[in-house]
Amino acid sequence: MGMVGGGIGAFIGNVHRMAARLDGEIELVCGAFSSDPEKSKRSGAELGLPPERVYGSYAEMIEKEKQLPEDQRMHFVSIVTPNHVHFGPARMALENGFHVVCDKPLAFDLEEARILERLVEETGLLFALTHNYTGYPMVKQARAMIRDGMLGDIRKVVVEYPQGWLSARIEATGQKQAAWRTDPDKAGMAGAMGDIGTHAENLAEYITGLKIAELCADLTTFVEGRLLDDDGNVLLRFDNGAKGILHASQICAGEENDLNIRVYGTRGGLHWRQQEPNSLVVKWLDKPMQVYRTGAGSLAPEAQAHTRIPAGHPEGYLEAFANIYRNFAICLRAHLEGTTPDPLYTDFPTVSDGVRGMLFIQKVVESSRKGAVWVKV
Amino acid sequence: MGMVGGGIGAFIGNVHRMAARLDGEIELVCGAFSSDPEKSKRSGAELGLPPERVYGSYAEMIEKEKQLPEDQRMHFVSIVTPNHVHFGPARMALENGFHVVCDKPLAFDLEEARILERLVEETGLLFALTHNYTGYPMVKQARAMIRDGMLGDIRKVVVEYPQGWLSARIEATGQKQAAWRTDPDKAGMAGAMGDIGTHAENLAEYITGLKIAELCADLTTFVEGRLLDDDGNVLLRFDNGAKGILHASQICAGEENDLNIRVYGTRGGLHWRQQEPNSLVVKWLDKPMQVYRTGAGSLAPEAQAHTRIPAGHPEGYLEAFANIYRNFAICLRAHLEGTTPDPLYTDFPTVSDGVRGMLFIQKVVESSRKGAVWVKV
Amino acid sequence: MGMVGGGIGAFIGNVHRMAARLDGEIELVCGAFSSDPEKSKRSGAELGLPPERVYGSYAEMIEKEKQLPEDQRMHFVSIVTPNHVHFGPARMALENGFHVVCDKPLAFDLEEARILERLVEETGLLFALTHNYTGYPMVKQARAMIRDGMLGDIRKVVVEYPQGWLSARIEATGQKQAAWRTDPDKAGMAGAMGDIGTHAENLAEYITGLKIAELCADLTTFVEGRLLDDDGNVLLRFDNGAKGILHASQICAGEENDLNIRVYGTRGGLHWRQQEPNSLVVKWLDKPMQVYRTGAGSLAPEAQAHTRIPAGHPEGYLEAFANIYRNFAICLRAHLEGTTPDPLYTDFPTVSDGVRGMLFIQKVVESSRKGAVWVKV
Amino acid sequence: MGMVGGGIGAFIGNVHRMAARLDGEIELVCGAFSSDPEKSKRSGAELGLPPERVYGSYAEMIEKEKQLPEDQRMHFVSIVTPNHVHFGPARMALENGFHVVCDKPLAFDLEEARILERLVEETGLLFALTHNYTGYPMVKQARAMIRDGMLGDIRKVVVEYPQGWLSARIEATGQKQAAWRTDPDKAGMAGAMGDIGTHAENLAEYITGLKIAELCADLTTFVEGRLLDDDGNVLLRFDNGAKGILHASQICAGEENDLNIRVYGTRGGLHWRQQEPNSLVVKWLDKPMQVYRTGAGSLAPEAQAHTRIPAGHPEGYLEAFANIYRNFAICLRAHLEGTTPDPLYTDFPTVSDGVRGMLFIQKVVESSRKGAVWVKV
Repeated sequence: MGMVGGGIGAFIGNVHRMAARLDGEIELVCGAFSSDPEKSKRSGAELGLPPERVYGSYAEMIEKEKQLPEDQRMHFVSIVTPNHVHFGPARMALENGFHVVCDKPLAFDLEEARILERLVEETGLLFALTHNYTGYPMVKQARAMIRDGMLGDIRKVVVEYPQGWLSARIEATGQKQAAWRTDPDKAGMAGAMGDIGTHAENLAEYITGLKIAELCADLTTFVEGRLLDDDGNVLLRFDNGAKGILHASQICAGEENDLNIRVYGTRGGLHWRQQEPNSLVVKWLDKPMQVYRTGAGSLAPEAQAHTRIPAGHPEGYLEAFANIYRNFAICLRAHLEGTTPDPLYTDFPTVSDGVRGMLFIQKVVESSRKGAVWVKV
Repeated sequence: MGMVGGGIGAFIGNVHRMAARLDGEIELVCGAFSSDPEKSKRSGAELGLPPERVYGSYAEMIEKEKQLPEDQRMHFVSIVTPNHVHFGPARMALENGFHVVCDKPLAFDLEEARILERLVEETGLLFALTHNYTGYPMVKQARAMIRDGMLGDIRKVVVEYPQGWLSARIEATGQKQAAWRTDPDKAGMAGAMGDIGTHAENLAEYITGLKIAELCADLTTFVEGRLLDDDGNVLLRFDNGAKGILHASQICAGEENDLNIRVYGTRGGLHWRQQEPNSLVVKWLDKPMQVYRTGAGSLAPEAQAHTRIPAGHPEGYLEAFANIYRNFAICLRAHLEGTTPDPLYTDFPTVSDGVRGMLFIQKVVESSRKGAVWVKV
Repeated sequence: MGMVGGGIGAFIGNVHRMAARLDGEIELVCGAFSSDPEKSKRSGAELGLPPERVYGSYAEMIEKEKQLPEDQRMHFVSIVTPNHVHFGPARMALENGFHVVCDKPLAFDLEEARILERLVEETGLLFALTHNYTGYPMVKQARAMIRDGMLGDIRKVVVEYPQGWLSARIEATGQKQAAWRTDPDKAGMAGAMGDIGTHAENLAEYITGLKIAELCADLTTFVEGRLLDDDGNVLLRFDNGAKGILHASQICAGEENDLNIRVYGTRGGLHWRQQEPNSLVVKWLDKPMQVYRTGAGSLAPEAQAHTRIPAGHPEGYLEAFANIYRNFAICLRAHLEGTTPDPLYTDFPTVSDGVRGMLFIQKVVESSRKGAVWVKV
Repeated sequence: MGMVGGGIGAFIGNVHRMAARLDGEIELVCGAFSSDPEKSKRSGAELGLPPERVYGSYAEMIEKEKQLPEDQRMHFVSIVTPNHVHFGPARMALENGFHVVCDKPLAFDLEEARILERLVEETGLLFALTHNYTGYPMVKQARAMIRDGMLGDIRKVVVEYPQGWLSARIEATGQKQAAWRTDPDKAGMAGAMGDIGTHAENLAEYITGLKIAELCADLTTFVEGRLLDDDGNVLLRFDNGAKGILHASQICAGEENDLNIRVYGTRGGLHWRQQEPNSLVVKWLDKPMQVYRTGAGSLAPEAQAHTRIPAGHPEGYLEAFANIYRNFAICLRAHLEGTTPDPLYTDFPTVSDGVRGMLFIQKVVESSRKGAVWVKV
């Protein structure tokens, strides 16, 4: 793995590294950790990389790595930069034969996203997008139960992603995470909706197997002086006739990272909360509520396959994130060896999920700008 | 108290009676318990009323009671009939000098509601509407904290009322509670939105002190053959610029009665759930989350005043309902004695809350019929 | 009902009155509300009783009521005084043909308790002891599930009753509830163990159907200057070989009234908490955890019979307490009418449960005084 | 790191490897993964080790590694074998100058434990015992709050460790984890008490800073044919006069791994549950309950220092386990470099904690065998 971005101190870069390390399947071999070559060097040194594999730019990394013998060079790039620096390294990597893991949202805008999707199709290279919440075992359990019809026909979906950390204008104080996320030149056309709304959208479609067909979005910028939305409420209509609500916010003061989803069908409903990710509450029309638990008996094979330790030993965010990397690694190994991977381990979000996310961003912004009217997706 | 409706076997009639009894301030002295005089008689007998105070109709009750000496007749009527039989007895009671307690929603339509509001103004009689959820101590605590600015300026409100009991077409099986609630001739123009959406609307406005200024409602009838909405998702805009979401449903399979509300301000947020009503979760931007508890120290005077037993001895739905009745009784006693009631005990929903609820019903239906567009309230 | 004790301001007296009122089956007709006749008068007046039925002492009440015609006099006495004033009125009531409801623990000591038990046997009168926690629907559900073998053979019981309100020496400040409970002349030989430990003991034996056969108790008085235990930890051995733990405390600072019990058998376990009394968590050896809920489908008949309102409308402490009174009233009515009551409604704690509680008190004190050694019960 | 035990398929071996990997500070360089040399080879190959660093026995590993140049050989051994194979490799490692990480409990019996303690003292080598639960940020927060006197003087401790996985005699079916844990020749003199009771003991002493001074233990073997305790209830007396309860069980059917602790002082109490490890509930005598959360503001420096990601991104068992390894690595690096490690990162359980655990095992068994009597610790 060669990393683009994620210099020392970066939040998500370190998350990617821990996730990649956890299962011992992936080794960080090189990186271009910063657009500042000096900072990149220092970061690479702290990470224990040999100086000659720490590059001053992603372009340099891709070029130089390509010149290494096949058995020595990186197999894939991991892109952990702000949104506006996803497209460049992703395209260049694909064009030069490198597989890609990319942070979400996929790109700066829908057009970029579609170009990447086409490149992936043309090259046959692997592309994982780290919508990491789909890596949780109980999310896979929820998806399996709905797919198998246990809840009946799906009628209603409520997906929420409240955070509170942008309740005040901390981007003005130099907080880096806040700064680029609230800057239209770096984040793209949406703020909260792009950063976390897309996670909610992805989770809802992943768990239900449905597609959002129409939406009506009311986006707001509550914090004075901010340029992008920090809150959004969206009505949803799914392709099967189900209705839904999606709301995402970064001004819900006091909330940490409370992504959660409820899905109701004709026979029952389920509820999953990211902050207590090892429980899946299932409510039935006509029998007592159940709580499915990570690692406990009677789970779907895909839930079991993404669990590392026995029930009651809580797995968390990093383990879910690592499930994306591990599946990517398993598929990559199979790809390199020309074998077929175990289908239990082929599940990770792809470039197409990324296109869908960019489409979602475009549509919620379009709807909101027109006065919160219905638009087709 | 003279009761209209609520014959033996009725759900809400018995709730009203238990609530009225709890504090020993109110006595059931007469009733017209059913439109079927025989059934009314049997109900009255089972309730231990003398036969001569059990009437065949509300009209008879009001007329005959009026003829009794003042110190013997009922002081007020309690109307616990389906929606289409609220207006008749309420109007007649007011016109004949009787105070009124009425179940929600106030009337069959907005026009009726406005007539009742005018009558209350003209007569100076007391009128309580049993939006009983405002009777919970922790709801009063939430209201007090927001009123006192503890959460800062309010930015976002999420109020939910999911139930699942109408997931199948049980009205076709003769289930009485379902039958009238899904019948446009009895329930009015809305189903779930009228029955429980109004509770959500009332709770949101009560706790925040804000008014809904605009809304966009997507109502759905999921169960085939049903004539009224059984699910509704609504975007809200409040008069202070806050945004919100209200959803109410009776097809959320597996949900019992999960009314809950979250309110976020610039300094923190709060969360209250009716199913665990003695806890109020308060989340702060910059300090650990707190859980306020019914009966525990440091609560607002109005929360304390509506609590009967020490912390940890859970109070429930009936105690909250009884708070409406007790405050009504305290105000009525003061009214009769020409005194001023203790202001801690004057808080109960009034005919004006009822008008507001009917307006809400009219507006969500209007919005939805036009394709889920924004309408001013 | 004639009440002994419970003058205005008393906590438990008012609880008894509310519980007795709730279902409209019981009327307060007279009382000796205080050992101070003046205070008794004032209390009776506030409760709306005619002056001639408000007595200066329980002896006067029992004598005078006995002289009234049978259809006018009270049917039973309700004794809500401190422990040292249970025996006197209970004995006198029984000896004069009145049925009895008595607060717990039954008496000042085991000897008194056994005399009362004998009197009940001899007179055939009804005697209810308000171990009110057995009135909760989910407690009855737990009992039914264990009785029906759903958990298999019972192996382990953990019952806890932590409170924190006596963490400081508030009895020295004149707090009345604290004063008598910490006074050996009024409370008896035990403090926390008598006041709440007996509730825990009763709940454990009620739910499991087992009897404590041996115990080893380590009682402590943490608050300096206090004369009775304010904390106790007890190891239990049950008559079927199950093992257990019981702890009760009034110095668990910050705890409200967290009575809870866990029972484990060979097939599964259950957990009930008084502070969230409408949920019963059932954990299975080999399938997902379930949560049974008051009022929801599929419950045991005895759980349903003690529920007043639909699922999701929380019932609390007063409703559970009222279940004791209602069942007592139903049995009393049948007794008076010479009929057989519906067996679903005959369940309330009796004088024998009270004897068992007094035995428990005696044994834990004996064990602790000897250095926390094992004693047979 | 060279590993002893933990061949492919072993539960705890893989846990140690994931924990060691997470932060990129530790590399597995060699191992003796099984007492079966063939199995060791296969395991080493799967883990990607060069064949020459995969050994047939721990003795061979220690001897051969010692002969490698200092900059190439392993720095420490990680011992992840059953209890009866802790002492041999630990002693030999220490005697040959290798640092040690060892799984708990420390040894087969107290005598072995004391020999190891002496060796650590004599050699000055580092020794970490993986009482991993002390690695959780909220456990460190609890310890800090108590140390700083926020709860006042500690009066009561309740520590529980219920599991249900040994409810049936699964050791007879060849389940490996069960087989050695229930075999006195491998596990030592205690079953559940040794395996998980020691975790509870360690957690209680770690969080409170108190020492257990006396105990009274009632151990039971519920499953027929089993040779060691599978359940134990223990009364505790601490050195400051606090009282406590410790119970640990592997027959609490339906429980997963519900280690939890409550501590009460004169000013408040706290509750931490391993299954929801990112919340620490703190209850106050005179103000609303608080919930401290991993990663959120206002935490003690040691809690923050052991957190990797922002609040609301749940960290779990592996992250806590990794905190032990990371601190060990930081201290080892400092030791090798002759520097002083940052005191925030020097906290891990040591050989002395292990001696304390073995003493606890010996004392609970002694107490129980004598009939559950009090013994001094």
